[in-house]
Amino acid sequence: MRDTASLLARRLTAAGLTVAAAESLTGGRVAAALTRRPGSSAFFLGSVVAYANEVKIKLLDVPEAVLSEHGAVSEACARAMAQGVRRRLGARLAVASTGIAGPDGGSPAKPLGLVWLAVAGETGLWTAEHRFTGDRRAVTRAATMEALRFLARIVDITAPGTY
Amino acid sequence: MRDTASLLARRLTAAGLTVAAAESLTGGRVAAALTRRPGSSAFFLGSVVAYANEVKIKLLDVPEAVLSEHGAVSEACARAMAQGVRRRLGARLAVASTGIAGPDGGSPAKPLGLVWLAVAGETGLWTAEHRFTGDRRAVTRAATMEALRFLARIVDITAPGTY
Repeated sequence: MRDTASLLARRLTAAGLTVAAAESLTGGRVAAALTRRPGSSAFFLGSVVAYANEVKIKLLDVPEAVLSEHGAVSEACARAMAQGVRRRLGARLAVASTGIAGPDGGSPAKPLGLVWLAVAGETGLWTAEHRFTGDRRAVTRAATMEALRFLARIVDITAPGTY
Repeated sequence: MRDTASLLARRLTAAGLTVAAAESLTGGRVAAALTRRPGSSAFFLGSVVAYANEVKIKLLDVPEAVLSEHGAVSEACARAMAQGVRRRLGARLAVASTGIAGPDGGSPAKPLGLVWLAVAGETGLWTAEHRFTGDRRAVTRAATMEALRFLARIVDITAPGTY
């Protein structure tokens, strides 16, 4: 986690990119990882930890129809969260997480460990679906790590050759 | 940290209180601590990790005059952050953190380790000033722990006898 976050921090700083996050499942852990090292204020603007659906609607502009039709744990919701926080915070890149950490809340269609991630940038919107195994802590950690890795890959696309 | 967060979670759940956070210095760690255990969605609505001043203004309604006159690391800013996130998220209680984690940014008037915390509730607004020692990680951890403790004390005032 620390190496991934440190490498990502160096890439973002070198590329002069700013980043924001919208976190449901990861609950502030992406923000915590990005602010671990000194100098993080150069690239990290902030994160909206939107646990309640009302917060996703009010602070991230997730359409109510997305939540009622697809649910909070869905590709559509992850996309809307990433786009919403990017626009609200004026960031160049934004990453979003939503998923089911457990131990409650799983279903056949949306099992425990299901995680949707999204990254929004100026030139694109990327999403990824994961099924992580393990307990609540393991799923949350895996999702946080993967969010950082996902963001790093998009930095490579957005600002190639900066590291 | 885990014991404090678990105890706080039980108190909030028993009292039927909802909580939100506005985090600058703690960078998402208060949210991470509050969402560590299952069932946290019963009391935790969300957190605005407002690292950039623009985010404090846009998402937390911190007045620009507070930032220009007192700075982001000030009692006035901590108060405004707590009140802002409480109102925006519709929470019963809200906790806010702002401070200087270092290694850069210290001054004689605002040394490294200076932390302002605030808790906003229906019947009051409480603030606390701390001077923590140690490196960036130590200051951030101490501030996170103290934010949880501060919140727990206010829960005792707001909803006595619920545990």
